[in-house]
Amino acid sequence: MSKVLCVLYDDPVTGYPKSYARDGVPTIKSYPGGQTLPTPKSIDFKPGQLLGSVSGELGLRKFLESLGHKLVVTSDKDGANSTFEKELPDASIVISQPFWPAYLTEERFKKAKKLELAITAGIGSDHIDLEAAMRHGVTVAEVSYSNSISVSEHVVMMILSLVRNYIPSYQWVVKGGWNIADCVERSYDLEGMNVGTVAAGRIGLAVLRRLKAFDVKLHYTDRYRLSPDVEKELNLTFHPNVESMVKVCDVVTINCPLHPETEHMFDDKLIAKMKRGAYLINTARGKICDKDAVARALENGHLAGYAGDVWFPQPAPQDHPWRTMPYHGMTPHVSGTSLSAQARYAAGTREILECWFGLRPIREEYLIVDGGHLAGTGAHSYSAGNATSGWEEANKYRTGAR
Amino acid sequence: MSKVLCVLYDDPVTGYPKSYARDGVPTIKSYPGGQTLPTPKSIDFKPGQLLGSVSGELGLRKFLESLGHKLVVTSDKDGANSTFEKELPDASIVISQPFWPAYLTEERFKKAKKLELAITAGIGSDHIDLEAAMRHGVTVAEVSYSNSISVSEHVVMMILSLVRNYIPSYQWVVKGGWNIADCVERSYDLEGMNVGTVAAGRIGLAVLRRLKAFDVKLHYTDRYRLSPDVEKELNLTFHPNVESMVKVCDVVTINCPLHPETEHMFDDKLIAKMKRGAYLINTARGKICDKDAVARALENGHLAGYAGDVWFPQPAPQDHPWRTMPYHGMTPHVSGTSLSAQARYAAGTREILECWFGLRPIREEYLIVDGGHLAGTGAHSYSAGNATSGWEEANKYRTGAR
Repeated sequence: MSKVLCVLYDDPVTGYPKSYARDGVPTIKSYPGGQTLPTPKSIDFKPGQLLGSVSGELGLRKFLESLGHKLVVTSDKDGANSTFEKELPDASIVISQPFWPAYLTEERFKKAKKLELAITAGIGSDHIDLEAAMRHGVTVAEVSYSNSISVSEHVVMMILSLVRNYIPSYQWVVKGGWNIADCVERSYDLEGMNVGTVAAGRIGLAVLRRLKAFDVKLHYTDRYRLSPDVEKELNLTFHPNVESMVKVCDVVTINCPLHPETEHMFDDKLIAKMKRGAYLINTARGKICDKDAVARALENGHLAGYAGDVWFPQPAPQDHPWRTMPYHGMTPHVSGTSLSAQARYAAGTREILECWFGLRPIREEYLIVDGGHLAGTGAHSYSAGNATSGWEEANKYRTGAR
Repeated sequence: MSKVLCVLYDDPVTGYPKSYARDGVPTIKSYPGGQTLPTPKSIDFKPGQLLGSVSGELGLRKFLESLGHKLVVTSDKDGANSTFEKELPDASIVISQPFWPAYLTEERFKKAKKLELAITAGIGSDHIDLEAAMRHGVTVAEVSYSNSISVSEHVVMMILSLVRNYIPSYQWVVKGGWNIADCVERSYDLEGMNVGTVAAGRIGLAVLRRLKAFDVKLHYTDRYRLSPDVEKELNLTFHPNVESMVKVCDVVTINCPLHPETEHMFDDKLIAKMKRGAYLINTARGKICDKDAVARALENGHLAGYAGDVWFPQPAPQDHPWRTMPYHGMTPHVSGTSLSAQARYAAGTREILECWFGLRPIREEYLIVDGGHLAGTGAHSYSAGNATSGWEEANKYRTGAR
């Protein structure tokens, strides 16, 4: 019998909706490039349900209990007195989502004597100290591609909304005015702009594909060069480094993982190299940007807008400057947890657990750390190292007022 | 000497920005399909400036006065005591934008004894009673294509924002919360959905092209069938009428002009034929939808969201139900008046005036009514008739508190 410790975000404060806004979600046949969707033997939920919050349980309880395992679900994840830390010592498997990450640091690995598997329900395992995971022989897996397209849609939405000054214009409606000039004095068309992505992996490439028809000039920088066919198809300009790319871009979107090399990449120095009036969109990880440098650049007018849905730490403290800085279009970390995405990564989590308990190998593309080394997707996208430091600040939120 | 009466929206209540958010706008070489951008002999403004408000004067004063004409600019457009009505009797040319329309009704045509030309700086001349214009021998021209791409960007932005539940999620950030479940219980991916446009003219087709890469299923209905090549390229499903299209669509975007046949097309009856949980986006004209039917459908859950930037009348009264109905993502009428669009339609207005005063023909594609008949674009897109009734309600706004 294994104990599965699952950290999920809180249920809606307004209660569950009487009925969902829509009757289910469209069926997707495969991911771009041909990777198949999750293939669990069965699922115990209806796609379109809210699965990522505590009472949703990722749809796992019936399955786990039918195999004789114990499932513990909590949202209480930070600090030594949290349910998570109390339950950790005899947990074999830990599951959490990047939107509400259970930080797994060296200290916690030391307490988790029985831990064998850490699953990220979603994509992005930087809340786990991967070096420590390797040292402690813990396998780390995530549900690759499950929400990449979700995030790419969020990126395009945020680019358009910043460039066109959407939210301030909406606010004039609600306030009761008809202040066209006030709405449009910061409103532009995206057409003709130079747009660049930091990294062109699954998400970055999906963003580029979606932007092509907007008649923009597309740029990218990445450790890996895309194929000449793709570069030609999308008319991409490749840049050997981020500095040379941001200098020519009106819009920059960050789509790389967080690891020690990308931590605080967008600091005062790099932002100063961006064009005046550029927009920066970060749906990758909050720590890739220096939060105070971003706020300063918006205040002094060097950046025209900043949007994204990633923060550090998460949940973001109430006094996080990104909540109140001018010209932002932030959301909480939600882009990868649409109801559509939840259905896919809940199924992917189930697939990983079915493999694990059935002693079958986990798909290569889901593996981040295995057998003490970076593996699968981990070897492609991550650097060995630890980018979790500072996570303790998340605790502030819990101790402060909600 | 001609008197040119130009109705523009008010200057920003916060005053002009100390500096614009960006240093100019990208240069666009031509419109899709090859129509050339406006070709005035010169312009007296810098693209990227605010031109559509009173002090911007569409950049026309120097040009008009150098030819000995008189330019009167006002935002005061509604009611018998308005500056517009007082100045109308001896005006030869009237110019206004759809965002702040100077309604030209039969009554006003009767007062406008010297009126020869009515220019819409932008696209959409439904604020003019076209039948009356024909009877009175007034030429009507608009700057076709000048902001079609601007509007198409707004449509895609609003589709994504409704489907992904953007604005409510943004509001959690500002309120200081981290309520993931509350953000996402109405958040979906666009991928895989069925999206249909009512009309596939310049805007509708641009929307379809922009959506193609989102891996949605595209539908359209129109009086004119697109070429088989375009249908194949975009994998479009044609519907002979709007009823058959809305039945299968998760997202419906309205991109037809307003004329008697499209007035109140989306009423209780048609909305009832839409799928439960569908989204409706209307950046065409407010009167194409029955405003109360839309509000009812949002309140009872039949529609999952409504967005757009067109209202009737304009400016919208403070008690217009679309300001307060649930699940809306409305803006004031701004999609076609981004700073980028203003530069184009100000140049187009200048081009039309240069032709008019130089006794050269106005471009065929700019003409709506000429020589007592629908002409040019007018003959393609409009029906003869009058869709201005009810405009007097706009006056409520002026008499109420701002």
